[in-house]
Amino acid sequence: MNYQPLPDDVRFLLQAVLDAPNRLRALAPFAEVDDELHAQVLGEAGKFVAEVVAPLNRGGDEIGCRFDHGAVTTPPGFRDAYQAFWQAGWPALSAAPEDGGQGLPAVLEAVLYEWLSAANHGFTMAPGLLHGAYACLEHHGSSELKARYLAKIASGEWLATMCLTEAHAGSDLGQVRTRAVPQPNGSVRVAGGKIFISGGEHDLSDNIVHLVLCRLPNAPAGPKGLSLALVPKILADGARNAVHCERIEEKMGLHGSPTCVMRFDDATGWLIGEPNRGLAAMFVMMNSARLHVALQGIGLLDAAWQKADAYARERRQMRAPIVPATRGPNDAADLIIEHPAIRRILDTQRAWVDGARVLAYHTAFELDVAKHHPDVARRDAAQRWCSLVTPVLKAACTQQAFSGASECLQVFGGHGYVREWGIEQIVRDARITMIYEGTKEIQAIDLLVRKVLADGGAGLGTLLDELAQDTSAATGVVDRFERLRELTRTLAEAARHDSALPYWVADDYLRAVALALLGWAWSRIEAGLGTDTPDLAARWQAPAQALHDWVLPEFNMRVQTVLARCDRARLV
Amino acid sequence: MNYQPLPDDVRFLLQAVLDAPNRLRALAPFAEVDDELHAQVLGEAGKFVAEVVAPLNRGGDEIGCRFDHGAVTTPPGFRDAYQAFWQAGWPALSAAPEDGGQGLPAVLEAVLYEWLSAANHGFTMAPGLLHGAYACLEHHGSSELKARYLAKIASGEWLATMCLTEAHAGSDLGQVRTRAVPQPNGSVRVAGGKIFISGGEHDLSDNIVHLVLCRLPNAPAGPKGLSLALVPKILADGARNAVHCERIEEKMGLHGSPTCVMRFDDATGWLIGEPNRGLAAMFVMMNSARLHVALQGIGLLDAAWQKADAYARERRQMRAPIVPATRGPNDAADLIIEHPAIRRILDTQRAWVDGARVLAYHTAFELDVAKHHPDVARRDAAQRWCSLVTPVLKAACTQQAFSGASECLQVFGGHGYVREWGIEQIVRDARITMIYEGTKEIQAIDLLVRKVLADGGAGLGTLLDELAQDTSAATGVVDRFERLRELTRTLAEAARHDSALPYWVADDYLRAVALALLGWAWSRIEAGLGTDTPDLAARWQAPAQALHDWVLPEFNMRVQTVLARCDRARLV
Repeated sequence: MNYQPLPDDVRFLLQAVLDAPNRLRALAPFAEVDDELHAQVLGEAGKFVAEVVAPLNRGGDEIGCRFDHGAVTTPPGFRDAYQAFWQAGWPALSAAPEDGGQGLPAVLEAVLYEWLSAANHGFTMAPGLLHGAYACLEHHGSSELKARYLAKIASGEWLATMCLTEAHAGSDLGQVRTRAVPQPNGSVRVAGGKIFISGGEHDLSDNIVHLVLCRLPNAPAGPKGLSLALVPKILADGARNAVHCERIEEKMGLHGSPTCVMRFDDATGWLIGEPNRGLAAMFVMMNSARLHVALQGIGLLDAAWQKADAYARERRQMRAPIVPATRGPNDAADLIIEHPAIRRILDTQRAWVDGARVLAYHTAFELDVAKHHPDVARRDAAQRWCSLVTPVLKAACTQQAFSGASECLQVFGGHGYVREWGIEQIVRDARITMIYEGTKEIQAIDLLVRKVLADGGAGLGTLLDELAQDTSAATGVVDRFERLRELTRTLAEAARHDSALPYWVADDYLRAVALALLGWAWSRIEAGLGTDTPDLAARWQAPAQALHDWVLPEFNMRVQTVLARCDRARLV
Repeated sequence: MNYQPLPDDVRFLLQAVLDAPNRLRALAPFAEVDDELHAQVLGEAGKFVAEVVAPLNRGGDEIGCRFDHGAVTTPPGFRDAYQAFWQAGWPALSAAPEDGGQGLPAVLEAVLYEWLSAANHGFTMAPGLLHGAYACLEHHGSSELKARYLAKIASGEWLATMCLTEAHAGSDLGQVRTRAVPQPNGSVRVAGGKIFISGGEHDLSDNIVHLVLCRLPNAPAGPKGLSLALVPKILADGARNAVHCERIEEKMGLHGSPTCVMRFDDATGWLIGEPNRGLAAMFVMMNSARLHVALQGIGLLDAAWQKADAYARERRQMRAPIVPATRGPNDAADLIIEHPAIRRILDTQRAWVDGARVLAYHTAFELDVAKHHPDVARRDAAQRWCSLVTPVLKAACTQQAFSGASECLQVFGGHGYVREWGIEQIVRDARITMIYEGTKEIQAIDLLVRKVLADGGAGLGTLLDELAQDTSAATGVVDRFERLRELTRTLAEAARHDSALPYWVADDYLRAVALALLGWAWSRIEAGLGTDTPDLAARWQAPAQALHDWVLPEFNMRVQTVLARCDRARLV
């Protein structure tokens, strides 16, 4: 079965839980975006994803991308689907109207990309990179560069790449060696090798615009000597630029997306932004790019759940411990969904998908608030949310995508291990999300060291205060927030005795924050249900129970783990 | 890099920690097996695994098995390696001397198979099935069947399969439909279809002996109507029997092992054991088969650790939080093994491998005690250990193989996701171990419902008493045992209010038992180190710390999770 977006679930979260359409209308650019437009966009997006993109997923994995003498052929149907995708205006959904975009809220784009990833992760990699390139160029590009490239990138007519990694420079971008030599005409000559370039070469679009992290002559060593250059595959005069794909990687999964080794042979390019300020130019889009990876995680987990749930409602094996209503007089065995071991797997993944959606959609909303709200204090609060919550979502949603998809595979028993059911593809595809755009370990250090401890926990404390305001104390949410605050104080104190301590416990700390936020998200869902919607309550009841039974107990464990390590640091 | 067995580690565990050679000499068949013979077998096994089997692993995955008109070709080198393997006597290591075996202790076979699985899981599937078939035939075969097949299976000259699963009968073998119709000459005609048959067809050996779960005419429905038949591929007169491979599955991994769809078209066979007692005949080998899968898990995790550890000692990225001794004057970045996030991944996997080895080798020892000890009470105690600990090891070691190998992949960053480093193969290969020979959920129900609650926790209590006797209270081991006992009492009581309760919490309960046992195993390792071996202590210190920091905290979480659910059951 192919992935089928369920707009009703998402609409309930956006409207009843997050009140997003109303709150968005308070921002000037979205004053006219009414509930109906929201519903219409979601409906059309769901249709496009289900009808055009989802059916290509299996071929994307089994046939994959082919490399031949520098050219890359994407799997059958991908080019047509991509052409239909950009021509229908999907890449431009949230781009500014002055760049040819539709100027819609980021949260609609978030839902679109979650569904696309669920339906076909490999296909989605290509347009997924457009938004970062668009933001980067929009903020830092010269007016000349913008005139030539911005509209084509906004519309998606030309696809884009982010050329960061080199063989010796992965998490450590400060070691990048690709050179850019300024030319009298204002361009630069770019030379060097890049690896792991998603969509570095393909047949989806007529041109490819590479954003390349590079180093000018005599630039300082390390991250403060990096610049960013725009290098198109095809130059304005139609000539082929000196940028080439040397091979594509054989990977564990994500076969629908070509991961390219790229060579720049004195290719022609132009700097984006100030010399030696390349990392800053790229960080413009960091939160949005990481949110997109978190959304991939949510989408992949939802896709895995959908497959496993359907299988569990068809497959009969053994007797359930309590006679179920689904047992017919001639059934020698019960549906496996009636077995507690299967129920807890399925309900636990729903608890993650639903709660993480609330957090991710709320983050997308805050991205717009940070850009468009008239009040600077509100913009700052939004920036604080994005800065603190994004690494948490990136790490936690991708980890759950992999481990949860693996649990969903378990629902299929031996059938899960064979290709034909498609569930093992999701496990393989999901694995990369824990790595790219910063590994989960990098996210944890970003959260704890760069963001929480840097201001002694003040920013996180303020965020938790804001969330606690409209949360009932009975839900346990406020108690977890209080323990998180105390944990942060203890940790900050202990780190004075042992400067390596935060690096040892960063993963546990991030997990604790993730679970506290997930608990908050579910308290919002429960508040959104109200008391007069029994049908709706039935949909959300089992995952709410699973959250409390199987997910939240990890919170205490993580807190205890960090505290034990703090105790040891003080003793040493 | 290929897997490299490290006999010193294993020798330390067998001799200093488990005192296995001395204790084995108390059993009559092993009176002559001295330390030197142990060391010699381990040395030779390590050499064979490293030189002959490990180099074929990559091709096993990338080329895999090919199917063509009913014939299966195994990957390049597999047939020669298998021929060398059986001719060197490895399959017969622990088989009885009267069947042509070497009569060595099961623990040596355990180490051999752990190493083989680590080096090449796909290759190891074929001989891995011999031992169950040997035990089954030895205990239940007629003298005529034994005369024809036992020696060939003991030596491994002919390989064997276990034909259990059918499309509609996986975990639920009671639904098996394959028919066996008795013939006047004492044979049976076997007809039906089987799926997921590892090694159902291949070119490794000249004959293949299938053990087929089937149903006689008029047999009762369900598991009590199942019989077991031996069906050879080639009959005694050299004729091809009517058993055919219809296709092989495309799988997530384990490409070196053909997973066959088999068709029996009135094939000639002979019953093994009593009619309708087929499951009992198969259960003879259940503990030993499940222990083998646990050992696969340990081996795969060790292989993943070995790769990641080597990479972490070569790869430099970013500065470690504390200046490491390995930082040279010209190094712009530190070895990633100096980063706490990487250290904790590596040390945690070692904590699992080392502790699980103690438990698995001890289980192999107890298998021999249960067979050969003169004292019936001691044999019963051994049987209790095997019965209770085997499902725990099967579930916990395979889950850690998959999740721990995935963590090891994380050490490689993006490089881990591409084929060339071989780490992603381990993740894919390991995934099946959580499913076959009974899923982890089935193991958990087997432990809690069939074994622990069946006698009100008495057997487990006795086992814990025995272990606690020579364990220092200071290690926390005894405390965890006490909490486990209390948990079992609470659970038994609460289950009276809610008969489904054990099925909801079986997974958590199994994890709690696994962690309590792992803690005990490490207390034995620490005792074995003594005080006068500083070099040795350095090897075991970091994983011991990782166990306490990152592994054992889960024990409390699991206990709390079960208790919370018990509380709810009593309220309902």
